Amino acid sequence: MTQKSIPDIVVGRLPRYLRALEYMLRNGIKTTSSQELGESIGISAAQIRKDLSQFGEFGKQGTGYSVRYLVDQLQAILHVNQSWDLVLVGVGDLGTALAAYQGFINRGFHIVLAFDNNPIKVGKKIGGLPIYSMEELEKRVSTSKAKIAMLTVPASAAQETADKLIKSGIRAILNYAPMQLNVPSDIHVEYIDPVTKLQHMTYYLG
Amino acid sequence: MTQKSIPDIVVGRLPRYLRALEYMLRNGIKTTSSQELGESIGISAAQIRKDLSQFGEFGKQGTGYSVRYLVDQLQAILHVNQSWDLVLVGVGDLGTALAAYQGFINRGFHIVLAFDNNPIKVGKKIGGLPIYSMEELEKRVSTSKAKIAMLTVPASAAQETADKLIKSGIRAILNYAPMQLNVPSDIHVEYIDPVTKLQHMTYYLG
Repeated sequence: MTQKSIPDIVVGRLPRYLRALEYMLRNGIKTTSSQELGESIGISAAQIRKDLSQFGEFGKQGTGYSVRYLVDQLQAILHVNQSWDLVLVGVGDLGTALAAYQGFINRGFHIVLAFDNNPIKVGKKIGGLPIYSMEELEKRVSTSKAKIAMLTVPASAAQETADKLIKSGIRAILNYAPMQLNVPSDIHVEYIDPVTKLQHMTYYLG
Repeated sequence: MTQKSIPDIVVGRLPRYLRALEYMLRNGIKTTSSQELGESIGISAAQIRKDLSQFGEFGKQGTGYSVRYLVDQLQAILHVNQSWDLVLVGVGDLGTALAAYQGFINRGFHIVLAFDNNPIKVGKKIGGLPIYSMEELEKRVSTSKAKIAMLTVPASAAQETADKLIKSGIRAILNYAPMQLNVPSDIHVEYIDPVTKLQHMTYYLG
Protein backbone atom coordinates (compact mmCIF):
# COMPACT_ATOMS: atom_id res chain seq x y z
CA MET A 1 0.00 0.00 0.00
CA THR A 2 1.51 3.34 -0.97
CA GLN A 3 1.36 6.38 1.27
CA LYS A 4 -0.87 8.19 -1.18
CA SER A 5 -3.77 5.84 -0.54
CA ILE A 6 -4.08 6.77 3.16
CA PRO A 7 -6.80 9.38 3.75
CA ASP A 8 -5.45 12.64 5.13
CA ILE A 9 -7.91 12.50 8.04
CA VAL A 10 -6.29 9.23 9.15
CA VAL A 11 -2.80 10.75 8.87
CA GLY A 12 -4.04 13.65 11.00
CA ARG A 13 -4.94 11.30 13.86
CA LEU A 14 -1.54 9.58 14.00
CA PRO A 15 0.22 12.46 15.82
CA ARG A 16 -2.46 12.26 18.54
CA TYR A 17 -1.85 8.52 18.93
CA LEU A 18 1.87 9.15 19.04
CA ARG A 19 1.53 11.88 21.67
CA ALA A 20 -0.54 9.63 23.95
CA LEU A 21 1.85 6.70 23.45
CA GLU A 22 4.92 8.85 24.18
CA TYR A 23 3.17 9.95 27.37
CA MET A 24 2.65 6.29 28.33
CA LEU A 25 6.30 5.54 27.58
CA ARG A 26 7.48 8.39 29.81
CA ASN A 27 5.29 6.96 32.56
CA GLY A 28 6.76 3.48 32.28
CA ILE A 29 3.75 1.84 30.61
CA LYS A 30 5.08 -0.98 28.43
CA THR A 31 1.96 -2.39 26.76
CA THR A 32 -1.42 -0.94 25.87
CA SER A 33 -4.60 -1.83 24.01
CA SER A 34 -6.67 0.06 21.47
CA GLN A 35 -9.30 0.37 24.24
CA GLU A 36 -6.89 1.98 26.68
CA LEU A 37 -5.34 4.23 24.05
CA GLY A 38 -8.80 5.19 22.80
CA GLU A 39 -10.04 6.10 26.25
CA SER A 40 -7.01 8.30 26.86
CA ILE A 41 -7.66 10.37 23.74
CA GLY A 42 -11.40 10.11 23.17
CA ILE A 43 -11.28 8.05 19.96
CA SER A 44 -12.98 4.67 19.65
CA ALA A 45 -10.88 1.50 19.87
CA ALA A 46 -12.32 0.37 16.55
CA GLN A 47 -11.22 3.59 14.86
CA ILE A 48 -7.71 3.25 16.22
CA ARG A 49 -7.43 -0.37 15.08
CA LYS A 50 -8.76 0.58 11.65
CA ASP A 51 -6.37 3.52 11.32
CA LEU A 52 -3.31 1.54 12.40
CA SER A 53 -4.21 -1.42 10.18
CA GLN A 54 -3.70 0.86 7.15
CA PHE A 55 0.00 0.91 7.97
CA GLY A 56 0.63 -2.68 9.04
CA GLU A 57 0.23 -5.20 11.87
CA PHE A 58 1.34 -3.55 15.10
CA GLY A 59 -0.31 -5.62 17.83
CA LYS A 60 -0.97 -9.23 18.68
CA GLN A 61 -4.48 -10.52 19.31
CA GLY A 62 -4.95 -10.71 23.08
CA THR A 63 -1.65 -9.13 24.11
CA GLY A 64 -2.18 -5.61 22.77
CA TYR A 65 0.50 -3.24 21.56
CA SER A 66 4.06 -2.80 22.75
CA VAL A 67 4.14 0.94 23.50
CA ARG A 68 7.82 1.24 22.59
CA TYR A 69 7.35 -0.58 19.28
CA LEU A 70 4.26 1.43 18.34
CA VAL A 71 6.02 4.71 19.19
CA ASP A 72 8.95 3.71 16.98
CA GLN A 73 6.65 2.72 14.13
CA LEU A 74 4.54 5.88 14.31
CA GLN A 75 7.64 8.07 14.50
CA ALA A 76 8.96 6.36 11.37
CA ILE A 77 5.61 6.67 9.53
CA LEU A 78 5.38 10.38 10.39
CA HIS A 79 9.11 10.89 9.66
CA VAL A 80 9.72 12.31 13.11
CA ASN A 81 12.49 9.82 13.89
CA GLN A 82 14.70 12.58 12.51
CA SER A 83 14.89 16.27 13.38
CA TRP A 84 13.33 18.98 11.25
CA ASP A 85 14.44 22.55 10.70
CA LEU A 86 11.77 25.26 10.94
CA VAL A 87 11.66 28.82 9.67
CA LEU A 88 9.75 31.34 11.81
CA VAL A 89 8.30 34.32 9.97
CA GLY A 90 6.85 37.07 12.16
CA VAL A 91 8.43 37.75 15.54
CA GLY A 92 5.50 39.47 17.27
CA ASP A 93 4.04 38.32 20.58
CA LEU A 94 3.08 34.92 19.22
CA GLY A 95 6.30 34.39 17.26
CA THR A 96 8.27 35.27 20.37
CA ALA A 97 6.29 32.73 22.41
CA LEU A 98 6.84 30.04 19.77
CA ALA A 99 10.59 30.75 19.65
CA ALA A 100 10.73 30.13 23.41
CA TYR A 101 8.53 27.02 23.35
CA GLN A 102 10.51 23.99 24.55
CA GLY A 103 7.89 21.62 23.14
CA PHE A 104 9.32 21.98 19.64
CA ILE A 105 12.89 21.01 20.50
CA ASN A 106 11.73 18.15 22.75
CA ARG A 107 9.84 16.68 19.83
CA GLY A 108 12.47 17.18 17.15
CA PHE A 109 11.62 20.55 15.62
CA HIS A 110 14.30 23.24 15.59
CA ILE A 111 13.75 26.83 14.60
CA VAL A 112 16.82 27.73 12.55
CA LEU A 113 15.82 31.05 10.95
CA ALA A 114 13.63 33.94 12.12
CA PHE A 115 12.38 36.89 10.08
CA ASP A 116 10.45 40.07 10.80
CA ASN A 117 9.75 43.25 8.84
CA ASN A 118 10.08 45.53 11.88
CA PRO A 119 13.47 47.36 11.63
CA ILE A 120 13.56 47.65 15.43
CA LYS A 121 13.55 43.85 15.70
CA VAL A 122 15.92 43.07 12.84
CA GLY A 123 19.42 42.34 14.13
CA LYS A 124 18.15 41.52 17.62
CA LYS A 125 18.13 37.92 18.83
CA ILE A 126 15.30 35.57 19.71
CA GLY A 127 15.97 32.22 21.36
CA GLY A 128 19.62 32.62 20.41
CA LEU A 129 18.79 33.25 16.74
CA PRO A 130 19.33 36.52 14.90
CA ILE A 131 16.17 38.09 13.48
CA TYR A 132 16.66 38.81 9.78
CA SER A 133 14.74 41.28 7.66
CA MET A 134 12.08 40.03 5.24
CA GLU A 135 14.31 41.16 2.37
CA GLU A 136 16.72 38.36 3.31
CA LEU A 137 14.03 35.67 3.43
CA GLU A 138 14.36 34.19 -0.04
CA LYS A 139 18.15 34.09 0.00
CA ARG A 140 18.46 32.62 3.48
CA VAL A 141 15.61 30.11 3.28
CA SER A 142 16.60 28.79 -0.14
CA THR A 143 20.14 28.11 1.06
CA SER A 144 18.92 26.40 4.25
CA LYS A 145 17.70 22.80 4.68
CA ALA A 146 14.36 23.98 6.08
CA LYS A 147 11.24 22.66 4.36
CA ILE A 148 8.75 23.84 6.99
CA ALA A 149 7.76 27.38 8.01
CA MET A 150 5.63 28.78 10.82
CA LEU A 151 3.78 31.87 9.68
CA THR A 152 2.93 34.33 12.44
CA VAL A 153 2.55 37.51 10.40
CA PRO A 154 -0.65 39.61 10.26
CA ALA A 155 -3.40 38.23 8.00
CA SER A 156 -2.80 41.06 5.53
CA ALA A 157 0.78 39.87 4.91
CA ALA A 158 0.20 36.11 5.08
CA GLN A 159 -0.42 35.26 1.41
CA GLU A 160 2.47 37.33 0.09
CA THR A 161 4.81 35.83 2.70
CA ALA A 162 3.62 32.29 1.94
CA ASP A 163 4.30 32.88 -1.76
CA LYS A 164 7.87 33.94 -0.96
CA LEU A 165 8.42 30.95 1.31
CA ILE A 166 7.20 28.51 -1.33
CA LYS A 167 9.42 30.16 -3.94
CA SER A 168 12.31 29.62 -1.53
CA GLY A 169 11.74 25.87 -1.22
CA ILE A 170 9.34 25.66 1.74
CA ARG A 171 6.91 22.76 1.28
CA ALA A 172 4.86 22.89 4.48
CA ILE A 173 3.42 25.91 6.31
CA LEU A 174 1.90 26.08 9.75
CA ASN A 175 -0.27 29.18 9.38
CA TYR A 176 -1.24 31.16 12.49
CA ALA A 177 -2.77 34.01 10.48
CA PRO A 178 -6.58 33.68 10.62
CA MET A 179 -7.03 33.24 6.88
CA GLN A 180 -6.89 30.55 4.24
CA LEU A 181 -3.77 30.45 2.06
CA ASN A 182 -3.86 29.74 -1.67
CA VAL A 183 -0.98 27.38 -2.41
CA PRO A 184 -0.02 24.86 -5.10
CA SER A 185 -1.39 21.35 -4.57
CA ASP A 186 1.99 19.92 -3.57
CA ILE A 187 2.36 22.36 -0.66
CA HIS A 188 0.96 21.36 2.74
CA VAL A 189 -0.71 23.90 4.98
CA GLU A 190 -2.07 23.41 8.48
CA TYR A 191 -3.90 26.10 10.39
CA ILE A 192 -3.94 27.19 14.00
CA ASP A 193 -6.78 29.59 14.74
CA PRO A 194 -7.94 29.58 18.37
CA VAL A 195 -11.10 31.52 17.49
CA THR A 196 -12.44 28.72 15.28
CA LYS A 197 -11.81 26.32 18.19
CA LEU A 198 -13.66 28.63 20.57
CA GLN A 199 -16.56 28.98 18.12
CA HIS A 200 -16.74 25.21 17.82
CA MET A 201 -17.35 25.06 21.57
CA THR A 202 -19.77 28.00 21.85
CA TYR A 203 -22.09 26.02 19.57
CA TYR A 204 -22.69 23.75 22.54
CA LEU A 205 -22.83 26.51 25.14
CA GLY A 206 -25.59 28.66 23.66
CA MET B 1 -33.84 18.73 14.05
CA THR B 2 -32.27 19.15 17.48
CA GLN B 3 -28.69 20.29 17.93
CA LYS B 4 -27.68 16.94 19.34
CA SER B 5 -28.24 15.20 16.01
CA ILE B 6 -25.57 17.23 14.19
CA PRO B 7 -22.24 15.38 14.08
CA ASP B 8 -19.47 17.21 15.91
CA ILE B 9 -17.24 17.05 12.83
CA VAL B 10 -19.85 19.11 10.94
CA VAL B 11 -20.04 21.64 13.77
CA GLY B 12 -16.26 21.91 13.64
CA ARG B 13 -16.36 22.98 9.99
CA LEU B 14 -18.87 25.81 10.54
CA PRO B 15 -16.33 28.24 12.06
CA ARG B 16 -14.18 27.79 8.95
CA TYR B 17 -17.14 28.62 6.71
CA LEU B 18 -17.92 31.62 8.88
CA ARG B 19 -14.34 32.88 8.77
CA ALA B 20 -14.23 32.70 4.97
CA LEU B 21 -17.65 34.37 4.66
CA GLU B 22 -16.70 37.17 7.06
CA TYR B 23 -13.61 37.72 4.93
CA MET B 24 -15.83 38.00 1.82
CA LEU B 25 -18.11 40.43 3.65
CA ARG B 26 -15.18 42.67 4.61
CA ASN B 27 -14.14 42.65 0.96
CA GLY B 28 -17.56 43.73 -0.28
CA ILE B 29 -18.60 40.37 -1.76
CA LYS B 30 -22.40 40.16 -1.48
CA THR B 31 -23.22 36.72 -2.88
CA THR B 32 -21.31 33.47 -3.13
CA SER B 33 -21.77 29.85 -4.12
CA SER B 34 -20.82 26.60 -2.43
CA GLN B 35 -18.25 26.21 -5.25
CA GLU B 36 -16.62 29.57 -4.56
CA LEU B 37 -16.72 29.12 -0.79
CA GLY B 38 -15.34 25.60 -1.15
CA GLU B 39 -12.45 26.71 -3.33
CA SER B 40 -11.51 29.41 -0.85
CA ILE B 41 -11.20 26.93 2.02
CA GLY B 42 -10.34 23.64 0.36
CA ILE B 43 -13.60 21.83 1.12
CA SER B 44 -15.81 20.38 -1.62
CA ALA B 45 -18.95 22.26 -2.65
CA ALA B 46 -20.99 19.10 -2.03
CA GLN B 47 -19.69 18.85 1.54
CA ILE B 48 -20.55 22.49 2.24
CA ARG B 49 -24.09 22.09 0.86
CA LYS B 50 -24.56 18.91 2.87
CA ASP B 51 -23.25 20.51 6.08
CA LEU B 52 -25.38 23.64 5.73
CA SER B 53 -28.50 21.66 4.84
CA GLN B 54 -28.39 20.14 8.31
CA PHE B 55 -29.26 23.57 9.69
CA GLY B 56 -31.80 24.80 7.13
CA GLU B 57 -32.21 26.30 3.67
CA PHE B 58 -29.72 29.13 3.26
CA GLY B 59 -29.39 29.52 -0.51
CA LYS B 60 -31.59 29.63 -3.56
CA GLN B 61 -31.01 27.29 -6.49
CA GLY B 62 -29.16 29.26 -9.16
CA THR B 63 -28.57 32.46 -7.18
CA GLY B 64 -26.26 31.11 -4.47
CA TYR B 65 -25.96 32.42 -0.94
CA SER B 66 -26.29 35.94 0.37
CA VAL B 67 -23.00 36.35 2.23
CA ARG B 68 -24.53 38.70 4.82
CA TYR B 69 -27.45 36.35 5.49
CA LEU B 70 -25.24 33.28 5.76
CA VAL B 71 -22.84 35.10 8.13
CA ASP B 72 -25.80 36.10 10.33
CA GLN B 73 -27.16 32.56 10.33
CA LEU B 74 -23.82 30.90 11.10
CA GLN B 75 -23.12 33.42 13.86
CA ALA B 76 -26.49 32.57 15.39
CA ILE B 77 -25.97 28.81 15.05
CA LEU B 78 -22.53 29.04 16.67
CA HIS B 79 -23.83 31.52 19.30
CA VAL B 80 -21.22 34.07 18.35
CA ASN B 81 -23.78 36.82 17.72
CA GLN B 82 -23.08 37.63 21.38
CA SER B 83 -19.82 38.22 23.19
CA TRP B 84 -18.17 35.61 25.39
CA ASP B 85 -16.04 36.04 28.47
CA LEU B 86 -12.83 34.02 28.66
CA VAL B 87 -10.60 33.05 31.56
CA LEU B 88 -6.86 32.79 30.87
CA VAL B 89 -4.91 30.43 33.10
CA GLY B 90 -1.13 30.55 32.73
CA VAL B 91 0.53 33.85 31.85
CA GLY B 92 3.80 32.56 30.41
CA ASP B 93 5.07 33.48 26.94
CA LEU B 94 2.05 31.98 25.20
CA GLY B 95 -0.52 33.33 27.68
CA THR B 96 1.03 36.77 27.29
CA ALA B 97 0.77 36.54 23.50
CA LEU B 98 -2.87 35.43 23.73
CA ALA B 99 -3.72 38.28 26.10
CA ALA B 100 -2.39 40.72 23.50
CA TYR B 101 -4.08 39.03 20.52
CA GLN B 102 -6.59 41.40 18.92
CA GLY B 103 -8.22 38.54 17.02
CA PHE B 104 -10.19 37.51 20.10
CA ILE B 105 -11.81 40.88 20.75
CA ASN B 106 -12.55 41.43 17.05
CA ARG B 107 -14.46 38.19 16.98
CA GLY B 108 -16.36 38.60 20.25
CA PHE B 109 -14.14 36.90 22.82
CA HIS B 110 -12.99 38.92 25.83
CA ILE B 111 -10.45 37.77 28.36
CA VAL B 112 -11.88 38.92 31.70
CA LEU B 113 -9.71 37.07 34.23
CA ALA B 114 -6.06 35.98 34.21
CA PHE B 115 -4.29 33.66 36.65
CA ASP B 116 -0.74 32.47 37.20
CA ASN B 117 1.03 30.63 40.00
CA ASN B 118 4.22 32.68 39.72
CA PRO B 119 4.34 35.14 42.68
CA ILE B 120 6.43 37.54 40.58
CA LYS B 121 3.58 37.82 38.06
CA VAL B 122 0.67 37.95 40.52
CA GLY B 123 -0.51 41.52 41.02
CA LYS B 124 1.04 42.69 37.74
CA LYS B 125 -1.18 43.51 34.78
CA ILE B 126 -1.58 41.88 31.40
CA GLY B 127 -3.63 43.52 28.65
CA GLY B 128 -5.11 45.80 31.29
CA LEU B 129 -6.16 42.88 33.50
CA PRO B 130 -4.69 42.09 36.92
CA ILE B 131 -3.02 38.69 37.18
CA TYR B 132 -4.46 36.78 40.13
CA SER B 133 -2.89 33.88 42.00
CA MET B 134 -4.14 30.35 41.39
CA GLU B 135 -5.48 30.32 44.96
CA GLU B 136 -8.08 32.87 43.86
CA LEU B 137 -9.16 30.91 40.80
CA GLU B 138 -12.18 29.07 42.17
CA LYS B 139 -13.61 32.09 43.97
CA ARG B 140 -13.15 34.52 41.08
CA VAL B 141 -14.20 32.20 38.26
CA SER B 142 -17.30 30.92 40.03
CA THR B 143 -18.52 34.48 40.65
CA SER B 144 -17.84 35.52 37.02
CA LYS B 145 -20.01 34.92 33.96
CA ALA B 146 -17.18 33.11 32.14
CA LYS B 147 -17.96 29.64 30.83
CA ILE B 148 -14.81 29.25 28.70
CA ALA B 149 -11.18 28.99 29.76
CA MET B 150 -7.90 29.00 27.84
CA LEU B 151 -5.36 26.76 29.51
CA THR B 152 -1.72 27.71 28.91
CA VAL B 153 -0.11 26.07 31.93
CA PRO B 154 2.64 23.40 31.72
CA ALA B 155 1.41 19.89 30.89
CA SER B 156 2.19 18.75 34.45
CA ALA B 157 -0.35 21.23 35.86
CA ALA B 158 -3.02 20.99 33.16
CA GLN B 159 -5.30 18.27 34.57
CA GLU B 160 -5.37 19.69 38.09
CA THR B 161 -6.09 23.18 36.75
CA ALA B 162 -8.82 21.87 34.45
CA ASP B 163 -10.47 20.12 37.41
CA LYS B 164 -10.51 23.40 39.35
CA LEU B 165 -11.93 25.30 36.40
CA ILE B 166 -14.74 22.80 35.90
CA LYS B 167 -15.53 22.89 39.62
CA SER B 168 -15.82 26.67 39.26
CA GLY B 169 -18.40 26.50 36.47
CA ILE B 170 -16.23 26.44 33.33
CA ARG B 171 -17.86 24.33 30.62
CA ALA B 172 -15.42 24.67 27.73
CA ILE B 173 -11.62 24.57 27.73
CA LEU B 174 -9.20 25.48 24.98
CA ASN B 175 -6.17 23.46 26.03
CA TYR B 176 -2.72 24.54 24.87
CA ALA B 177 -0.92 22.04 27.08
CA PRO B 178 0.27 19.12 24.91
CA MET B 179 -1.77 16.48 26.71
CA GLN B 180 -5.26 15.04 26.74
CA LEU B 181 -7.56 16.17 29.57
CA ASN B 182 -9.95 13.84 31.36
CA VAL B 183 -13.22 15.72 31.79
CA PRO B 184 -16.89 14.88 32.38
CA SER B 185 -18.90 14.22 29.21
CA ASP B 186 -20.75 17.56 29.41
CA ILE B 187 -17.49 19.57 29.30
CA HIS B 188 -16.09 20.56 25.91
CA VAL B 189 -12.37 20.54 25.26
CA GLU B 190 -10.53 21.64 22.14
CA TYR B 191 -6.79 21.29 21.71
CA ILE B 192 -4.12 23.44 20.16
CA ASP B 193 -0.83 21.60 19.76
CA PRO B 194 1.39 22.91 16.96
CA VAL B 195 3.61 19.83 17.11
CA THR B 196 0.78 17.50 16.08
CA LYS B 197 0.12 19.83 13.12
CA LEU B 198 3.80 19.78 12.17
CA GLN B 199 3.90 15.98 12.46
CA HIS B 200 0.84 15.75 10.23
CA MET B 201 2.80 17.59 7.54
CA THR B 202 6.13 15.76 7.97
CA TYR B 203 4.27 12.57 6.99
CA TYR B 204 4.18 14.00 3.47
CA LEU B 205 7.71 15.41 3.51
CA GLY B 206 9.68 12.28 4.39
